[in-house]
Amino acid sequence: MTLQKHPLLIDLDGVLYVGDKAVPGAAEAVQWLDMEHIPYLFVTNTSSRPRSALVEKLARFSIDTDEKAILTPPVAASKWLETHAPGPTALFVPPATKVEFDCLEELDPCSETGASSVVIGDLGEQWTFPVLNRAFRLLMAKPSPRLIALGMTRYWRSTDGFHLDVAPFVKALEYAAGCKAVVLGKPSKEFFEAGLELLEHQGNDAIMIGDDIVGDVEGAQQAGLQGMLVRTGKFRPEDLEGSIKPDAVIESIAELPVWLSESAKLNRKHQ
Amino acid sequence: MTLQKHPLLIDLDGVLYVGDKAVPGAAEAVQWLDMEHIPYLFVTNTSSRPRSALVEKLARFSIDTDEKAILTPPVAASKWLETHAPGPTALFVPPATKVEFDCLEELDPCSETGASSVVIGDLGEQWTFPVLNRAFRLLMAKPSPRLIALGMTRYWRSTDGFHLDVAPFVKALEYAAGCKAVVLGKPSKEFFEAGLELLEHQGNDAIMIGDDIVGDVEGAQQAGLQGMLVRTGKFRPEDLEGSIKPDAVIESIAELPVWLSESAKLNRKHQ
Repeated sequence: MTLQKHPLLIDLDGVLYVGDKAVPGAAEAVQWLDMEHIPYLFVTNTSSRPRSALVEKLARFSIDTDEKAILTPPVAASKWLETHAPGPTALFVPPATKVEFDCLEELDPCSETGASSVVIGDLGEQWTFPVLNRAFRLLMAKPSPRLIALGMTRYWRSTDGFHLDVAPFVKALEYAAGCKAVVLGKPSKEFFEAGLELLEHQGNDAIMIGDDIVGDVEGAQQAGLQGMLVRTGKFRPEDLEGSIKPDAVIESIAELPVWLSESAKLNRKHQ
Repeated sequence: MTLQKHPLLIDLDGVLYVGDKAVPGAAEAVQWLDMEHIPYLFVTNTSSRPRSALVEKLARFSIDTDEKAILTPPVAASKWLETHAPGPTALFVPPATKVEFDCLEELDPCSETGASSVVIGDLGEQWTFPVLNRAFRLLMAKPSPRLIALGMTRYWRSTDGFHLDVAPFVKALEYAAGCKAVVLGKPSKEFFEAGLELLEHQGNDAIMIGDDIVGDVEGAQQAGLQGMLVRTGKFRPEDLEGSIKPDAVIESIAELPVWLSESAKLNRKHQ
């Protein structure tokens, strides 16, 4: 069963769909993976919505999945904290995301000391000086809590213009408190490792499939995975002219079954 | 007149006074400088109060001065912008400080485009998401405005705890917009240069007198001035054990007249 040697981490936006449109053949490719019993996990940097919303979105594209098959920064953070910084967690995340941290003990939202960790998400309009200053005071308390960033997205764009995302607030806190955040989101190593852990996989033959040459391909390669690039989503031909070399490039996720089958045949020949 | 070869930049807090107490002999030393016609300028990183408040404070310690003899980050920024980025300025500074920017054209406080510069001061409780996001949108507009930081203080402490100062918000904006701030405040070169310009001085014989081995002494030395350390204010003996070597060390500002007189005599001997 050579196919099972390659557990897959699969990006969502840009790979299975682009915005509100499915990538042709995506649903069939995922069905093929299920049929062949190839282990896979969907990984995305989306942190403002719970996995249940992503399950619903995928269902609209005829992709049947459940929450356990999706890794998001809040889920990775929650798992990471259970192991590395158990104890009261101070959550600076949107209400909709809080559900992903249910397994952790939440610090009293008025307390300015006593956190084991300070988790920073995309709070948007809910950032005020007292809220950010509370995160800072928590970080300055002794013993020092861990600072956790739910990804390092700088900003996003809506019809009314640019909006600051997670990263600027993380940078503000890092500089003020003189600490370094653990980033749980692509392209951080800890995020990919959390994915492999969920797949109960060890070794360097897992493949990350994404449309972002930096966040997906380079991030995966630096975490010891293979990085496969699709020519959909944010892909641009120039992506292949730089210093980052994907381990494989396919037209779209629709080609994945053929690629994996060919790769399995080649492996058999060499054995 | 060898004495006049050394124009002086003199820090306030820690040199002339420590908190609300005068440093003994400080008033007499300043009177001596006046008598000897030695050019000097007071330089401080205080940016939350206008110079008029500092003039009043110095008067309480029997030091007569006027606003023109004091350089603060808002004053330096205002001067720097006149030369380097004329045009509408977006001010993110406390109301009390706005008076220092009177010579500049202020951008309409509702506008999200059209700034020549974006000036970040210690807004404190007035930082909200829409306010910080407006600064970000201004920086993302084309042509890109200059980002100006009124010093890079990380935080300050009051009886109720820590408060985020200017620097964390500057770091947030730098990272989000992918730009680098011009820092006008110690220890930035531009700040010391603004001081020398106010003294109408060129050359490397100006002396910065301060109690901060990094902000005052190293900053001055890196800007091509000499750095003199006083053993008052935040001075600690360990400051003299590191890699930064002050050009001179005196017990306190009270010793300055004797030091300058001796230095003048030595100079005459060598001529």
